[in-house]
Amino acid sequence: MKIARFSAGGADPAFGILDEETDELVVLAGDPMFAGYQTTGERVALSGAKLLAPVIPRSKVISVALNYPIASDDLPQDERTEPLLLLKPNTSVVGPGDAIRLPPVEGRIVHEAELAIVIGRIAKQVPGERALETVFAYTVANDVTALDLMLADGQWTRAKGYDTFCPVGPLMETELDTTALEITASVDGRLRHGGNTRDMRFSIPDIIAAASDVWTLLPGDLILTGAPAIGEITAGQSVSVTVEGIGTLTNPVRAGD
Amino acid sequence: MKIARFSAGGADPAFGILDEETDELVVLAGDPMFAGYQTTGERVALSGAKLLAPVIPRSKVISVALNYPIASDDLPQDERTEPLLLLKPNTSVVGPGDAIRLPPVEGRIVHEAELAIVIGRIAKQVPGERALETVFAYTVANDVTALDLMLADGQWTRAKGYDTFCPVGPLMETELDTTALEITASVDGRLRHGGNTRDMRFSIPDIIAAASDVWTLLPGDLILTGAPAIGEITAGQSVSVTVEGIGTLTNPVRAGD
Repeated sequence: MKIARFSAGGADPAFGILDEETDELVVLAGDPMFAGYQTTGERVALSGAKLLAPVIPRSKVISVALNYPIASDDLPQDERTEPLLLLKPNTSVVGPGDAIRLPPVEGRIVHEAELAIVIGRIAKQVPGERALETVFAYTVANDVTALDLMLADGQWTRAKGYDTFCPVGPLMETELDTTALEITASVDGRLRHGGNTRDMRFSIPDIIAAASDVWTLLPGDLILTGAPAIGEITAGQSVSVTVEGIGTLTNPVRAGD
Repeated sequence: MKIARFSAGGADPAFGILDEETDELVVLAGDPMFAGYQTTGERVALSGAKLLAPVIPRSKVISVALNYPIASDDLPQDERTEPLLLLKPNTSVVGPGDAIRLPPVEGRIVHEAELAIVIGRIAKQVPGERALETVFAYTVANDVTALDLMLADGQWTRAKGYDTFCPVGPLMETELDTTALEITASVDGRLRHGGNTRDMRFSIPDIIAAASDVWTLLPGDLILTGAPAIGEITAGQSVSVTVEGIGTLTNPVRAGD
């Protein structure tokens, strides 16, 4: 089931279930993560809705680094036995179509095309075999990173946390087998990179288990599961991330203020 | 003015202004950061109140690393020209008297005694000369860190982010000249370390300016301004952090689950 958060006709943001036969959103009475699937009886044409980030985390955006074998001279290759977990702040989250604003920093800024987990329940020290019970849905994220700043800083928090550096959307999929999904990144409509979730170094259950060993996970937390490839983006471009079975997240790239 | 967040007699948490002559809390009708200082007419004895973390950040807990000259063989000495900014999640925040739960990780876990800034307004790219306008109040924080894990991980996010690793309190002080405040850490009542905010490498306005260059700061965001010294803590101890002009934050240390 695909769920969007959207605004239409000047109304407050609402959630809706996508009816893929009619391309309409079946409007929900509340946030389905907390209020279930009660509908209002309204339907809104997808074409007339402005899709928003499907979730605004109240607590954590967790980013898994180095989770795919990337051939890159820039990124350290390491052999750690646990996922490398970073945090992005919720102020970095934007929705589909929102601009990625490039801050005035030296060096390259890159897209990172990623499958994202939307956590649906409070979870602490979840064993891997029960980890999928914590998942509300999956969505698409672009883990935008100021690559050269990151390498210069040593600590990667700043370079991954700028405002607008976490586009999320276009919607959430609640039922998805994530073991072998194609992930692609395109810039101005041209395919840049492809990858597949089967190449993850740490699986989704392993990632959730590791994250919940450190942090209490809360409903609405996002976990970005790592990028199979990275590529530079510059102002004036449009960058799209597609995850098979969910959809395509497209964002224009603009110079920041 | 000193402001506490507290619970008393089973009621919901409330905010109160400390009347230092009578040691009573003058109860406020709402969160003063958003609702101002309207009082309910009630007064609660400080001795009968359970003090809580004075703020629960909805967005960011920012931790400034390496902001004092610390003589330590463990920590890297560096000459960076900007504050080194890390994030702790809001799930790490606990209040005065709450237990610091030590996770089952290898090596030393340390206290870091710090002056913390409570941000009171939305702020982005604030110049240093206007940075203090964004401050709602100051409080005391213990930036608990799994030191050996941090050094092994390379990235410091996990080691600083465990549940209970951010005790905050006992209350907030809205009027404070922070340029030369004594900061001390004590364990089981014995003084461990002292320091003074005058030795900060980056001043509070510089830190706010730098943080707001990266992130939009939101009301309730906390900025931990760095520790003048660190020291190991172990289960069964009680650790106290005192910042002159604010108060003493004391937390028992327990083995985690």
